[in-house]
Amino acid sequence: MLIFVGLGLFDEKDVTLKGLEAIKNADIVYLEAYTSRLTGTDIKVMEKLYERKINVLFREDVEINTDWLSDALDKNVVFMTGGDTMTSTTHIDLRLRAAEMGIETKLIHGPSIISAVYGLSGLQNYKFGKSASIPFPYTSSRGVRVVTETPYDTILLNKKSGLHTLVFLDIDPEKGYMTAKDGLKLLMEVENKKSAENAEDAGTFENIVGNSIAIGIARAGSEKPCVYADFARNFENFELGGPLQILVIAGELHLEEAKALVTFANAPVEILDE
Amino acid sequence: MLIFVGLGLFDEKDVTLKGLEAIKNADIVYLEAYTSRLTGTDIKVMEKLYERKINVLFREDVEINTDWLSDALDKNVVFMTGGDTMTSTTHIDLRLRAAEMGIETKLIHGPSIISAVYGLSGLQNYKFGKSASIPFPYTSSRGVRVVTETPYDTILLNKKSGLHTLVFLDIDPEKGYMTAKDGLKLLMEVENKKSAENAEDAGTFENIVGNSIAIGIARAGSEKPCVYADFARNFENFELGGPLQILVIAGELHLEEAKALVTFANAPVEILDE
Repeated sequence: MLIFVGLGLFDEKDVTLKGLEAIKNADIVYLEAYTSRLTGTDIKVMEKLYERKINVLFREDVEINTDWLSDALDKNVVFMTGGDTMTSTTHIDLRLRAAEMGIETKLIHGPSIISAVYGLSGLQNYKFGKSASIPFPYTSSRGVRVVTETPYDTILLNKKSGLHTLVFLDIDPEKGYMTAKDGLKLLMEVENKKSAENAEDAGTFENIVGNSIAIGIARAGSEKPCVYADFARNFENFELGGPLQILVIAGELHLEEAKALVTFANAPVEILDE
Repeated sequence: MLIFVGLGLFDEKDVTLKGLEAIKNADIVYLEAYTSRLTGTDIKVMEKLYERKINVLFREDVEINTDWLSDALDKNVVFMTGGDTMTSTTHIDLRLRAAEMGIETKLIHGPSIISAVYGLSGLQNYKFGKSASIPFPYTSSRGVRVVTETPYDTILLNKKSGLHTLVFLDIDPEKGYMTAKDGLKLLMEVENKKSAENAEDAGTFENIVGNSIAIGIARAGSEKPCVYADFARNFENFELGGPLQILVIAGELHLEEAKALVTFANAPVEILDE
């Protein structure tokens, strides 16, 4: 059997009792460590607590050279990831391959950043629209720096219906972890560009995101997560410390949501008046 | 300190090691048992594993008579809920009250149905729009049966952008747990009504939801969760067994998503052709 176990948000103790049981009973334990990462621990600490040797899988092991899967035909193989399990296309693809090989699969869920954001920010889950993600800018073959406008457009679409947007920040093997501040800077860059391009339709894109409340969250699941809210235009204030970070751009705020942001995230008190 | 602990999806073993540690170290342990429920366990089993007496809180204890909060000024008080912690407005309100009283608060996250749905269905989180919830119909003061159209409208709005909709099903102290089948029946009732009312605009509402793929999930987090996908119009087929249940109405499906639904949720193979 192939058992997918979500390890949760931050360190080795964010796994559930059910997950720990499956790991301890496993014949072979793998950790997929490229789509997400537990920044509050390391393999040695995990191996000690889980009482199992941990084999690290890289992208090619999960997406191309999946020979290791065949062990799951007659052994208990555990496949661990950060967060909840199976939230990435890669993992679903892996489960499909296993099914084709006649391997039984099972999921053991763990805490996910997606629901953690609701609790930490005080924003209500039913007020979120489609989520977005901001990739690092890249340089095109013609030497032009490219900043994708897709996340900005998603935020705009959500804001039209008064909805919040959860914004995932890029993790890159070379460029590292994108911070909430970096993400906001990129969103403001897109907004300023659109604003300049549409100068004749004065105000169309002016400060729609800039005047929105942004919520930056760092190290969710740790002893002291950082949750900070401010207008997106004040992106320089988003000094949240180390990874992992995630961002929310608020739509319309209920009074209760605004109160939570002021009380627990240092949001400007003027948002209570709106 | 007031520590909010999310107990996860199904039974007493869905809590994280961090959550269990907090419970065992608590002076007083409360369980909020009206916004969600762990259907795979009971208080006695939980008390045995957690080695603590569990005090059950009802709606009035959480929303009105919150005197018990003052213990958290100088004791470690744990407030447990099903799923992830603080996903309901009631809990945020409680945290705000605690803050006003000068009580320090902390969150310990647990697995949530929201991310579990992505893994169990194979649908990608970034393809979901705003979520919806279906309440039980009620009888108005004039004796008319009222079925809310809001969840239907949310699904339509999402489908316009090709997005999936997560649909929460009502839990009522008297009417019990709404099933995926009941929820689909109510959605089809709204669709048929709208369709009849707009007969001159033939086809406006015809089978938009009826021809969508619906995914019903029951007992997420258990040893054998049930995941079933079919066209929403075939709602009679959604026999998923006991609670808790949740529903997804699919928007546009990627091939990978369709494959997962066919392989793991018995979806009609014809969805692979689209």
